[in-house]
Amino acid sequence: MKTITKAQLEQALRHFDIEDVNCATIRQICAVAALLESISGEKFVHLELGNPGLAAEHAGIDAQCEALQRGVPNQYPNIIGVPALKQNGSDFIKAFLDINIPARCIIPTVGSMLGSFASMMILGQRLPGKDTMLFLDPGFPAQHHQAKLLGLNTVSVDIYNYRGALLYDRLEQELKSGRITGIIYSNPNNPAWTNLTEDELLTIGTLATKYDAIVIEDLAYLGMDFRTDYSEPYHKPYIPTVARYTNNYILLLSSSKIFSYAGERIAICCLSESVADRRYEYFEKFYDMPTLGDSLVHGVLYTISTGASHSAQYAFSAMLRAAVEGKLDFVHHTKEYGHRAAQAKEIFRRHGFHLVYEKDGEAPIGDGFFFTVGYHDMTGPELNKELLRHGIATIPLKSTGSKQEGVRVTVSMLCDEDTFRALDERLGQMTNDK
Amino acid sequence: MKTITKAQLEQALRHFDIEDVNCATIRQICAVAALLESISGEKFVHLELGNPGLAAEHAGIDAQCEALQRGVPNQYPNIIGVPALKQNGSDFIKAFLDINIPARCIIPTVGSMLGSFASMMILGQRLPGKDTMLFLDPGFPAQHHQAKLLGLNTVSVDIYNYRGALLYDRLEQELKSGRITGIIYSNPNNPAWTNLTEDELLTIGTLATKYDAIVIEDLAYLGMDFRTDYSEPYHKPYIPTVARYTNNYILLLSSSKIFSYAGERIAICCLSESVADRRYEYFEKFYDMPTLGDSLVHGVLYTISTGASHSAQYAFSAMLRAAVEGKLDFVHHTKEYGHRAAQAKEIFRRHGFHLVYEKDGEAPIGDGFFFTVGYHDMTGPELNKELLRHGIATIPLKSTGSKQEGVRVTVSMLCDEDTFRALDERLGQMTNDK
Repeated sequence: MKTITKAQLEQALRHFDIEDVNCATIRQICAVAALLESISGEKFVHLELGNPGLAAEHAGIDAQCEALQRGVPNQYPNIIGVPALKQNGSDFIKAFLDINIPARCIIPTVGSMLGSFASMMILGQRLPGKDTMLFLDPGFPAQHHQAKLLGLNTVSVDIYNYRGALLYDRLEQELKSGRITGIIYSNPNNPAWTNLTEDELLTIGTLATKYDAIVIEDLAYLGMDFRTDYSEPYHKPYIPTVARYTNNYILLLSSSKIFSYAGERIAICCLSESVADRRYEYFEKFYDMPTLGDSLVHGVLYTISTGASHSAQYAFSAMLRAAVEGKLDFVHHTKEYGHRAAQAKEIFRRHGFHLVYEKDGEAPIGDGFFFTVGYHDMTGPELNKELLRHGIATIPLKSTGSKQEGVRVTVSMLCDEDTFRALDERLGQMTNDK
Repeated sequence: MKTITKAQLEQALRHFDIEDVNCATIRQICAVAALLESISGEKFVHLELGNPGLAAEHAGIDAQCEALQRGVPNQYPNIIGVPALKQNGSDFIKAFLDINIPARCIIPTVGSMLGSFASMMILGQRLPGKDTMLFLDPGFPAQHHQAKLLGLNTVSVDIYNYRGALLYDRLEQELKSGRITGIIYSNPNNPAWTNLTEDELLTIGTLATKYDAIVIEDLAYLGMDFRTDYSEPYHKPYIPTVARYTNNYILLLSSSKIFSYAGERIAICCLSESVADRRYEYFEKFYDMPTLGDSLVHGVLYTISTGASHSAQYAFSAMLRAAVEGKLDFVHHTKEYGHRAAQAKEIFRRHGFHLVYEKDGEAPIGDGFFFTVGYHDMTGPELNKELLRHGIATIPLKSTGSKQEGVRVTVSMLCDEDTFRALDERLGQMTNDK
């Protein structure tokens, strides 16, 4: 394609009032890419947005249509969730993580976005002085925005330099202040596709217990570390989770990626029993409800959106059930992303790019939904803009809380050979222009 | 039914940690009623929860199933809303309110709950010192909770003593402080079913402009003041709205009640062009986006829930379209609530109850989704508890920001003659016990 000029790019960024691409949201980058597409007349290679690149699971669509036809839209969903979803969520977590969470502690939310927003709000309130969220970065940019919107203090630990045994001291250095109310991360990691090792999860769990921090573990890409086959329900190996090492946890489990159901905005927020039943003076005074679980549900989730789509709860419930019964192999279905990542990494490397986050312990990271690349000594924003000029949209790593230079690549939209070919050609063009 | 003892009632309230029924949420009252139902073995008459008591509109169900089958669940909905919903929302407002709002200013939200939560958040941020929401009370209790959760200051004006010409001075008394950033109310009113007169709307609009307050007008029960027939699109009489008297408005329009679609959590937040395009320094700094509209969408709604159900947006869009084309007469459909209210009011009055809020200007209030009753000199909580003991669930008026004594009655669940008979008998029993 004809390279977009620097002036055209700067004009497009100005059009959306973007002064610094590090601060732009993913949706803003999408909007810039759409504008540049209309200017250049060429379709972009979209590596910025994590839209599922697979069809939605039919078990979900069928169950949702059935619920609609049964007439559920005229009833507010019970704010604690429809019973089947709660039970199937509990069973799913037992089947794939080997963790016991009773149905009463499983709460539907409008995507895991609302799950993390509401959880962070509650964690920021529970105790005077515990006013800080610790982000194990890099992380999902929107969760950083959430903390900012909530007015929470944050500290960021970039795991890049603190893998393995180094993690303990680095985390303790922050936790010993006593101000950390929660620790948040996604695993597999968005954007780096690193996976915490069992040792690292043990570290996090141990320190969370020791310093009374509650871990929000976002399992958006659950089971997608394809180096290990986690596809068989109720059989080892089970999916790694901090829940094995502490009772201080909230797990976020979304239908968006594992079942390609992002559009319906449905997820579950899974509280350990001990977290759900914790009582705090602040909640008693502020919500007239002493427990964390009740305050989260009736005080926060009810007040923000009065629950999540009634029919989508039946969809999610049916998909979880089918997975538990071995009738819906979501691990196998999503493995397609692994193939795309392998092919895309080969192309990037061939053109002189390098992986920024490249190892878990001694092992190379797996192939999955994301990876991170840098190019020689270019900064993240420079690289992001050069790629945009050559018809490739990504997000800079700084926007994810990373301190490294580079960009995040999402492979979900790389869904045909033409798109791979365009990626290959444009990277060639960009690196030749240098 | 056998009357529930005071001890049993107190125990049930304690079970849910409710010390003061004035502070209980509607969902908590539901939970207490459910527990008492299991103790007494008798079904309660549910006058507490505004679940639609009509079937969901089929135009919505059909369109939503069609969207699901077309495969929309695998795509995040565009955060600004699907184009058809935006256009049909704009057309609907033109057809029934005779107000011009361009499609770009129509934003889907997870129910009007998220619409008011996000709007109040934005209004609380826009200017230093403008930190207070003015509630025209009585109002929807959840919106009071929202302001509290957001940490906003509030002032409450109970319209009971300030109808008509008295409203101007009472409102100005609050507005002249300069601290009021927004004015919020629902019209028709939840819980009193009063309807603001054109003179009162003129007052609110004039003062909103004069003191730079932005009005959040919640039109949850749009068109349901059945004293006037608003059913014909693009014809007078048009539905009353403050939007005729000021440009400082945000209209909240939900599918929940007008289309009996509460379960799917879909509404639109409709900003006047001038509100959407306002620029503030705070937004530029905090969101990297100067305008109120962009900050609301990309800064707040994206960050809280990343949009509203994709398939439900098509449902809402189809229902709005059908209404605009005169194929779905939602006014006629919901008129059923008016019949139920007339019958229920007759029963309450026959047993010695009185309406608390009873007039709009010189005219008696209409029959619709709610009304408010008192009984001699009983306080709201006393009456609420006595009714609970006799198998009737309501919410006390104080929880709605009213300063009057009484309870709110919702007629939506009064859906058959057996329920009316039970109401009649139990009110008789309660008043005989006195």
